Amino acid sequence: MKIAVSGKGGVGKTTLSSLLARYWARNGYRVLAVDADPDANLGSALGIDTTGIVPVAKMEQLITERTGMKPGTVGGFFKMNPKVDDLPEALGRERDGVKLLIMGTIKKGGGGCVCPESVLLKALVSHLVLYQKDAVVMDMEAGIEHLGRGTAQGVDRLVIVVEPGRRSIETAAKVRQLTKDIGLHKVVAVGSKVRNEREEDFLNDNLDGIPLIGILPFSEEIAAADLESRPPSLDDPAIYTAIERIAQGLEAEAD
Amino acid sequence: MKIAVSGKGGVGKTTLSSLLARYWARNGYRVLAVDADPDANLGSALGIDTTGIVPVAKMEQLITERTGMKPGTVGGFFKMNPKVDDLPEALGRERDGVKLLIMGTIKKGGGGCVCPESVLLKALVSHLVLYQKDAVVMDMEAGIEHLGRGTAQGVDRLVIVVEPGRRSIETAAKVRQLTKDIGLHKVVAVGSKVRNEREEDFLNDNLDGIPLIGILPFSEEIAAADLESRPPSLDDPAIYTAIERIAQGLEAEAD
Repeated sequence: MKIAVSGKGGVGKTTLSSLLARYWARNGYRVLAVDADPDANLGSALGIDTTGIVPVAKMEQLITERTGMKPGTVGGFFKMNPKVDDLPEALGRERDGVKLLIMGTIKKGGGGCVCPESVLLKALVSHLVLYQKDAVVMDMEAGIEHLGRGTAQGVDRLVIVVEPGRRSIETAAKVRQLTKDIGLHKVVAVGSKVRNEREEDFLNDNLDGIPLIGILPFSEEIAAADLESRPPSLDDPAIYTAIERIAQGLEAEAD
Repeated sequence: MKIAVSGKGGVGKTTLSSLLARYWARNGYRVLAVDADPDANLGSALGIDTTGIVPVAKMEQLITERTGMKPGTVGGFFKMNPKVDDLPEALGRERDGVKLLIMGTIKKGGGGCVCPESVLLKALVSHLVLYQKDAVVMDMEAGIEHLGRGTAQGVDRLVIVVEPGRRSIETAAKVRQLTKDIGLHKVVAVGSKVRNEREEDFLNDNLDGIPLIGILPFSEEIAAADLESRPPSLDDPAIYTAIERIAQGLEAEAD
């Protein structure tokens, strides 16, 4: 299962990605969590210190150093069809069964965009060979530009996170439209920060055919966790129940 | 005054941009609002239908058609140092004294990033000649990638919107750091969705030297406006008072 989590900025993509990753790890999956947002903070949401993790963007250099292969021959590396375990140690850091990879960020103002980083990440995710109980969860950047780049082209399911608000719905519609161009057909929605039935109805009424497979309700625990810079507790019963349902909905999508 | 509004996804950049633009227009300014987010929705926040507006990205073609100049000579056009009134009619649409320009969006999945669009917009904003009571308000895309591109390089003030949460503060710190590289030195913060004094204190305690020039408190009117797909009312007393203070703080920054 390779999943990308997309949606408007601030809807809760990182929170959902981190909770899904931890849920699957707790249920016996080998999980690779990938922060594909240049404004990266999946690390904090997983409680993983990212200091010293080599971003995927630097992997080319790393591989060159390790193997003596020339730069520009990375394609050759990916042809090996790496398994999750084959990834170089320095690329990721593990906690509670979740291994975190980061795409790379903007190091310098005026230094350019993250297109080269996206290309490498796309190739890596596309070529990863997964076993039955392996899961890859990619936390995408806010908005729709990653779809222009096709960063998530290698995943088999895309989750659009929506909150009860017109603009998050508008973004969802754009995301769904753009996924068609890159051949990504399993697209589902998850509601976030939903406070009551009226808000859930608003989502159901406005998603225009994108199936809503679950709801992560508004949660004081999630808000407090962000203020305190710690991962939200998966032992919170409301959170656990919601994530379990969303995870099962994703597992049920046949490959 | 040329202002860019930046910050983490979902903090309220578009809401603040639209309210500032409308406040200044009401107070006698000629205002150009620029949607520099490929996941564009400044139009809805201003109540302007964007159908048929030619994105800045397509201006090169437009100028070619109108002037017979060859593509690639756009630099020549900008050397004319256009005033706000000189912009081609088709580029913008006006309502209540605010003229909206849009950068351009992702038209096709896999079609590439918005770097070319950013280059044109940067050139346009840099070359615009403003008079005393002219204001340009650019609503940037979520996160930090626009700083890699230097899209906001031509503005003279950058506002970072922050909400009471650790991750929006982390993004603010990254934004501030990257602005130094592109020579943008007037950087201020505005708090958003603040519900009480404790949350305001949290922002003041954590902004690490970025001056907090105002607070847009949490507002049922703003939330309702998003649900109903209409601009939030500037006649709401709490909103008007907050925006007035933020606008005056920005005007006070000497050029």
